[in-house]
Amino acid sequence: MSAMPQPTPPQTAAGQAPLLDTKLIVPFVNSTKKVFSTMVRVEVDVDYPYLKENAIATYDVSGIMGFSGEILGSVVISFQSASAIKLVEAFTGSIFETSSTDFTDAIGELANMIVGAAKKDMGMNSNITVPTVVIGHGHCISRLTGVPCIVIPCKTSAGNFAVEVNIKPSR
Amino acid sequence: MSAMPQPTPPQTAAGQAPLLDTKLIVPFVNSTKKVFSTMVRVEVDVDYPYLKENAIATYDVSGIMGFSGEILGSVVISFQSASAIKLVEAFTGSIFETSSTDFTDAIGELANMIVGAAKKDMGMNSNITVPTVVIGHGHCISRLTGVPCIVIPCKTSAGNFAVEVNIKPSR
Repeated sequence: MSAMPQPTPPQTAAGQAPLLDTKLIVPFVNSTKKVFSTMVRVEVDVDYPYLKENAIATYDVSGIMGFSGEILGSVVISFQSASAIKLVEAFTGSIFETSSTDFTDAIGELANMIVGAAKKDMGMNSNITVPTVVIGHGHCISRLTGVPCIVIPCKTSAGNFAVEVNIKPSR
Repeated sequence: MSAMPQPTPPQTAAGQAPLLDTKLIVPFVNSTKKVFSTMVRVEVDVDYPYLKENAIATYDVSGIMGFSGEILGSVVISFQSASAIKLVEAFTGSIFETSSTDFTDAIGELANMIVGAAKKDMGMNSNITVPTVVIGHGHCISRLTGVPCIVIPCKTSAGNFAVEVNIKPSR
């Protein structure tokens, strides 16, 4: 289960206080729950967000949104194939192969809605890109060096997925 | 050789005139040649850019740069593993495993330099994101529906790679 490691509550070296900047995390937790509840009609349970220490987590389907402006970095919504197919079915009403344009458009649209709503919530003057969707068994994604990558593990009745937040204020 | 299909000069349905918007392509051809010549010390021969008709081209290593502002979309520099390792060695002087941070940072930096120089050359008021690097055997990347994805096939003595341009003016 390299893609969905057990959540580890983030800790300092002393094992006490959380290291996460909740201002950059909570908007994504809220927007993920809201988008899936309203648009996919699937409820999402969010586990403890944790710091991704290395790139061992691998996925089959990822929707990537880039940030520029007052926020730099990217946010990735990542799935295993089985979960992605079921969640896209719940979202669109159709079963698509992961290689189809309909499938990648649906994943891109989910990523766009989640990140767009979170960006609005953060209230900073940033731009987001159109989504890029990666399909490939067991890929991993490497991002901004020096910025903590926070993984928000999400559980649903149709399977699990992860929202990986790797952003920082530009100043 | 799904990753490097033979270049097909782009044609209209009538088989006559090119469909490419050269204003969006030439800056990437020039910046790719210049960055590899000066920073990697490897000369790049560019084949005919062609329209990517479907997502069958697969790669092992991709550096993705997103655009927002007056240009929307993304540009991806994609490699097979063997070429990527050799080109990163020529760039950095070291042989890195594709799973290492040094390797992904080098790929991201190459993508950043190529796209940054092309953006400057285009002279439009757009923002580019920090690079996102995808590592995974045989992945493919899906982008902006309705925008032609132009592939610029690049050949070097250390192996081939491709620059895929999927951008459009935002208005």
